[in-house]
Parts: sequence; C-alpha cells; structure tokens
Amino acid sequence: MERMKPRTLSGFMELLPRPQQQMERMMEILRRSYSLYGFTPLDTPVIESAEVLLAKGGGETEKQIYRFEKGDADLALRFDLTVPLAKYVALHYNDLSFPFRRYQIGKVYRGERAQRGRFREFYQADIDVIGDGKLDITNEAEIPAIIYRTFSALGLKRFQIRVNNRKILNGFYAMLGLTERSGDIMRTVDKLDKIGAEKVGALLRDELGLEASAVEEILRFIHIGGSNEEVLAALSGYEGRNELFDAGLSELKTVVKYLAAFGVPAENFAVDLTIARGLDYYTGTVYETTLLDHPEIGSVCSGGRYDNLAEYYTDRQLPGVGISIGLTRLFYVLGEQGMLNPELPTAPCDVLVLPMTEDLSPAIAAATALREADVRTQLYTEGKKFKAKMNYADKIGVPYVLFLGEDEAKAGAVSVKDMTSGQQQTLPVADAIAFIKAGIEERNRGAVIIEK
Amino acid sequence: MERMKPRTLSGFMELLPRPQQQMERMMEILRRSYSLYGFTPLDTPVIESAEVLLAKGGGETEKQIYRFEKGDADLALRFDLTVPLAKYVALHYNDLSFPFRRYQIGKVYRGERAQRGRFREFYQADIDVIGDGKLDITNEAEIPAIIYRTFSALGLKRFQIRVNNRKILNGFYAMLGLTERSGDIMRTVDKLDKIGAEKVGALLRDELGLEASAVEEILRFIHIGGSNEEVLAALSGYEGRNELFDAGLSELKTVVKYLAAFGVPAENFAVDLTIARGLDYYTGTVYETTLLDHPEIGSVCSGGRYDNLAEYYTDRQLPGVGISIGLTRLFYVLGEQGMLNPELPTAPCDVLVLPMTEDLSPAIAAATALREADVRTQLYTEGKKFKAKMNYADKIGVPYVLFLGEDEAKAGAVSVKDMTSGQQQTLPVADAIAFIKAGIEERNRGAVIIEK
Repeated sequence: MERMKPRTLSGFMELLPRPQQQMERMMEILRRSYSLYGFTPLDTPVIESAEVLLAKGGGETEKQIYRFEKGDADLALRFDLTVPLAKYVALHYNDLSFPFRRYQIGKVYRGERAQRGRFREFYQADIDVIGDGKLDITNEAEIPAIIYRTFSALGLKRFQIRVNNRKILNGFYAMLGLTERSGDIMRTVDKLDKIGAEKVGALLRDELGLEASAVEEILRFIHIGGSNEEVLAALSGYEGRNELFDAGLSELKTVVKYLAAFGVPAENFAVDLTIARGLDYYTGTVYETTLLDHPEIGSVCSGGRYDNLAEYYTDRQLPGVGISIGLTRLFYVLGEQGMLNPELPTAPCDVLVLPMTEDLSPAIAAATALREADVRTQLYTEGKKFKAKMNYADKIGVPYVLFLGEDEAKAGAVSVKDMTSGQQQTLPVADAIAFIKAGIEERNRGAVIIEK
Repeated sequence: MERMKPRTLSGFMELLPRPQQQMERMMEILRRSYSLYGFTPLDTPVIESAEVLLAKGGGETEKQIYRFEKGDADLALRFDLTVPLAKYVALHYNDLSFPFRRYQIGKVYRGERAQRGRFREFYQADIDVIGDGKLDITNEAEIPAIIYRTFSALGLKRFQIRVNNRKILNGFYAMLGLTERSGDIMRTVDKLDKIGAEKVGALLRDELGLEASAVEEILRFIHIGGSNEEVLAALSGYEGRNELFDAGLSELKTVVKYLAAFGVPAENFAVDLTIARGLDYYTGTVYETTLLDHPEIGSVCSGGRYDNLAEYYTDRQLPGVGISIGLTRLFYVLGEQGMLNPELPTAPCDVLVLPMTEDLSPAIAAATALREADVRTQLYTEGKKFKAKMNYADKIGVPYVLFLGEDEAKAGAVSVKDMTSGQQQTLPVADAIAFIKAGIEERNRGAVIIEK
C-alpha cells in the first residue's frame, strides 16, 4: 500500500499528551475564573458567511482570512471572537438580557506568514460585557479584578495590569489643537518603550512637523508617572480645559477608586498614559497586561471599552468592554520560558492497576472502586513482562501503581507503589483509595505557571 | 451606514446562553467520565492538509468535505476525529506510550444537505485505545463500562449497550460458505429493525439469490436472543466449525464475563447478533447504544475494535478500540424530546449583587468575598429603576439576589433574596455566603438529562 507521510500544517499547534494536559488546566482555570464574574459561556460557529464576517471589510485582516466556497456559499473562518459576538448579539438581541456578559474560548484563524511562535490556528479567550444603549463605568472598573484573579489563579504574581483612558488621550490632544494628528502622534508615542523618549520627540518634531512647544507638552504628559495617586494628581492639573479629558479622568478615578474593594493589590496595577490599543475601536478605558520579568513578550491580556459593538449589523447602540487572552501564544511563550510547572501531574491517570492474577475480576473490581471514588484509573492488561509494565508506568508518569496478586485478592487488599518515593505498601482497598486520593490532592496543589 | 443582516449559516448550531450552559455541563461530564478511565485529552487542528486527511480517499465523505486552497496549500477541514488521530499517532509514534488512550471532544465538518437535526458543524466526543502491534481483549471488555458510566453520569437510566463481535459474524458466514456475500447479507440483515424478519428473508432469497437453507440458517442465527447467558449458550452450538467464529465467541465471553466487575448492570447490556457497524473497518467487538424509550433516534454511542488505525500513514500495525458520541446531534435530540433537565441552574451567575448605596465599595467588597468563596457573582450597577433590576434578575434566572443598602453596609450585613421562594433575609456577609453556597449545591444536584 502507498503510504502518505503524516504531517501537521505549519503554524498549527498540536501538543503531545503532557503539554496538552497543561493546556487543559489553563483552559479550565480560565473557564472557572470567567464564570466567577458572571460571564456565561458561548460557542459560535467556526465558519460564517464571508459577507457577514467581513461586514466591516478591508484592512490587514481580510488578506489573512481563510475564505472559500462550498456549493454556491461564500464562506470564511472566524479570525477573532469579537465579530462573531457582534453578529450573535445583533441576531439574538431579543433573546438576550443586557448587560450581556459572555466568555468564549475558541479557535480563530489567520493565514499569517508562518514563523516561530506565530500561529495560524490559535485559541482566544475573551470576555465582554455588552450594554444596551448605556453601560456603567463600574464594568470598566471590574476588568482589572478579573485579569488579576485569572492570572493569579494561573500562578502568576509578577504581572502588571496597565490602564489608560482614551478620553484622556483624545482630550489632551484636543487641548493642544492636535485632534486631527492624534492618530499619528499615538502611533509614534507607542514606540516609546522601544526607542526612548528622545527619539520619540525627534520623530514628533521631524516627521510629524509638530512645534517644539507641542512636542514638549506631549513628552511631559507621557512622562507622568509614579503611584496611581501621583498620576491622578498630575492629570488633575489639566482639568477644566477639555470636557472629554475631564470625563476620561473621572472614569479613571472611578477605576482606581474601586481597585481595593475589587481585591486588586496596588503592585499589580498601574495607570500608564502611553498605552492606546489601536486607533479607532476603543473609546474609554484600555488595558494591557505585562509580565514584569518578560517585558519582551508584550501584553498577554488586552482590551478596552468600545461604544459600538455591532454597528455593521444593527442600528442599536451596543457599548461594551472586553479583554482577550491570546491563549495559544501565551502557552507557547510560557513553555519557551520554562514557566509551566513540571511538578503537576500530567499523566493520563492517577493510578495504573496491574493485575497479577489469571482471573482479572478482582483487579477490575478494584479499578471500578477507584473510579467510583473519582480516582482516574487505568487498567493495564497487556501481556508484557513485569519490567515492560513498569517502564510503561514510568513513561506515562503515573503517580501510583496498584498491584493485585492472588494473595492480595484473597485478602481484599492491594499493594500500592508510590512511583515518586518508590515506597510500596499493602492495604485494604478502601484504605488504598483514601491514601491515593490524599496523595493526588497534594500533588495537584501547585499552580500551572511558576515564576523563577 | 449600510447594515449587513446578521445571520448564522444553516446547519450550524448556535445556542442561546441557557441551552449553551446545558451543553457545557454535558461536555464537562464527558471530560470527567473519560478522564476517570485514564484517557488523556487531545486537541488536533481543525484544518489539515487535504492529501493527508484524504489519504484513505474516496467514498461519500469526500463529497461532503470542506476543501479549499490558501496560497498554494490544498487544505481541508476534519470530517471526523479518527483520521486526525491516525495521523497524530503515526506522526508522534516515538513520543507516545502504548496502549495510548486518548479522548477528544471537538468540532468536525461535513457539508451534508441541510435538514432538521442534521448539522454541518458538529461535536464528536471520542475515546480510543491504541495498541502497538497487539491490544488485549480486556480493553474491549472495558468499553461498555465507560459507556455505562458516561450515560449514567448524564442522568440516563433506560439505555442499552448492544454488543456483537465481527469475528462471530464473519465466522458464521464462512461456515455457510457465504464469505464473499457477507457484506451484502449484513446490509440486508441491518434492515431487520425496520422491515422485520420475514421481509429480510425474502430479500436474502430474491435479491441476493441465497438458497432456502442458507436463508433459514441466517434467520435462525439472527433470531438468537434472551439473556446474555442464553445467547452465549446458543452460540456455543456453532463452536468447532470455524476458527474465526470460535475466536469471536471467546472474546464475546470475556466481554460478558467481566461486565459485573466493571460495574455494568445486566439490564443495560445485551448481546445483539444483528449489529455490524459498517463493513470493512471493524474487526472484533462492536458497540451500539440505544435509548430504550427512543429507539427512533438510533444509536447514540457506537464504535468497535479495529486492527489497523493508521495504515495509510505507517507500516506499523496499530490495533485499537474506540467509541464516539455525536454530541451535537444527541444534544439536539434530547432538547427536542424535552429531556434536558430544566431545574438545573443555567444563569450566568449564582448571585446578582444590587448595590443601593452611593459609594459602591461595600457592594464590590461583598461581591469580591463571594467570588473568593467560589460563588459565581455578578455585580449589577446600571442606573435603572428597582423594578427593571429585578426584571433583569428574573430574566437571567439567577437563584439569589443580594441587596446592599446603607444600613446593611454599616452593619456588615447583606439582604439575600431567594428568587425561587421569594423569601428575603438579612445576614452577616459570611453567613450569607454559606447560605447561598448550600442552596446552589442543592440546586446543582440533579442530572443534566431526565427521563419521563
């Protein structure tokens, strides 16, 4: 028979069983964390009508999209979870209650040029709160709490949620009479981390042709730093000159005010006037999240407030606020950085049952009892030598092996071997189950992500 | 602005939040149930190279496949989870330990003619055990236990796992000298449930041209019924005439022998000599699962033993046994039959916190405390009238509403309203949390599926 060489497409993550277990843990933590904040899970099709998906049209995205025909239908794979959400909310408007809070963890597709750490199929893990006509600022204030709890639950400590408000930025540039130029200016300011303030100043002056006084004002503004209180105090110096600015500052104050009640420690949060998150979509609070020891990764959780989710599908004003985690990329980067906790169990089971009797009934009954006690159990009955069986146990990394010979079977007992310590003991079945459960609980105690 | 009418493609399931919660519960139960039997989760790309995916080629499937080009790549969407598994095992052979036990719950794509209850994008929930060269019969004996526990965990009681063995069928037809005709015969016998024995006999005689004696033998054989012991006894009458038959009978006896130790009640299991599950793939035990009160649905969980998982990708002999649940279709049918338990909570949260104070800090702190206690909590801060807020609580179906006015805030208390009973009480925050947790646990006690 002619054989086809098996392969997986470049840019498509396909994990081996052990890293897949780590990925599953991360997803489970995200689901739990998002649920705790009252977000309901949603699942939308991977394929949509191309004209619906591309209603907004144009841009870099359209080139990357997977688009194809089937019969006479013009189809496309979703390239994010926001456009399908907009479609969903517009389509099912009458069946939803607002504010509508949903999370979605799903695969999206972008046919980017394949390169290391870039994926064409990747998971996004999004939450959004959608209001009907209006949406209270408290929703924006709650987002840092969700980010904080989610990343803490994953095991991270050294991360910072950076927050800004687009109204403050737009209001500030309006004060300088630079509203028309604000897009170009923000794009330049965005390079601050990479090229430094001096070069940003030079670019603003030489490339954008701004006056020296305006450049000085801008550099002074983006230099505002210190504690949240210090930043807010400095911003107060600009109050009264522009309505939009004042509204943004008031919103930012609310976000900062409620941080403590929301349980966000001061060290995990910073007002940062340099972040803007794209130019035309966000209209209020914007968020980025950076790992303090890995600034090179960039933001691992970003988002913001927008005024009009579904304007391409409906006349209704549907403002919202949302954040997104690029889960596949995050997982890849964590793996590269050696930050995935190798101590957590990743075996397919907690116990491997090795029968040593002709009649397998006692071993099967023990496996059944373990499963009824919620212990993940594999029964191994292949006709192999003892050494091969133990090699298998080692290779899958199972924490416990349970032996069941004639003597144990007669006594209603089992022998349990702790594969880490190598210790073995013979116990009544019920005691063995309790022993294993306690051990498994202990082993599962750690976090998925570790910082070094 | 020109608006695009939002729509979802026909044949693509897109659920509203409440049924989506039910679907999520079902998936979570499948994940837990499969994990208990030592299956490791796997996730493979939705897109594969078309030549890899279609290595087997031909057939009805190829017409239904979503296939398209991107750049110069010829791509296709997976149409089942078995072909990607075969590719995965062949590709990663050196990194896997055998027997390799994996589960996968994922979307697959078939461009079938759209009709009610038929989906073009649907979830399959598969488990497979893959051996390297050999695979012990105990793995086949374990499958009914996995089906039993999975369906029981979903809440079903009145279902039957029907089992046959292809070696018995093939051996029997060999005895009659009808090996060459066995495919046609089995296709005809497969109509038994629909058209009855008499018509099957007529077809075998008139269409296939079998001799009267052979038809009589076949009808007698497929009429074998009764308890498992009675069926096995009747089959023993054929022993010694064909090696393959004898091997199949021995395997079937092993499967039946260990049922009790695996915890499968006799009433949920039946040997059924009429099921065959396709013609060329399965080689040993085959499984179907029917809902006793809904035979019209057909099998809701099927599979069997095969000898060669990945022959299109590798020379290695990789026998296996697996089953698959067509989850999207099952969910749809259960909904149609009114079998999804409406009593279970489907709200996005367990508690809705309604602040009644100017400063939201006490309400936010209460919400934070609830979340730290693992209670799914939504903070509602929209500027609406009280009645509108309570309408919202009703509409999302939240079990508890928590009010926090100035008096409560001062006293460190909250008022909790049970939305089912209408009763309201004022309690210290910690007591309110305990009260709500107990109530939620009680409400979550039922099963996802109910039988009427």
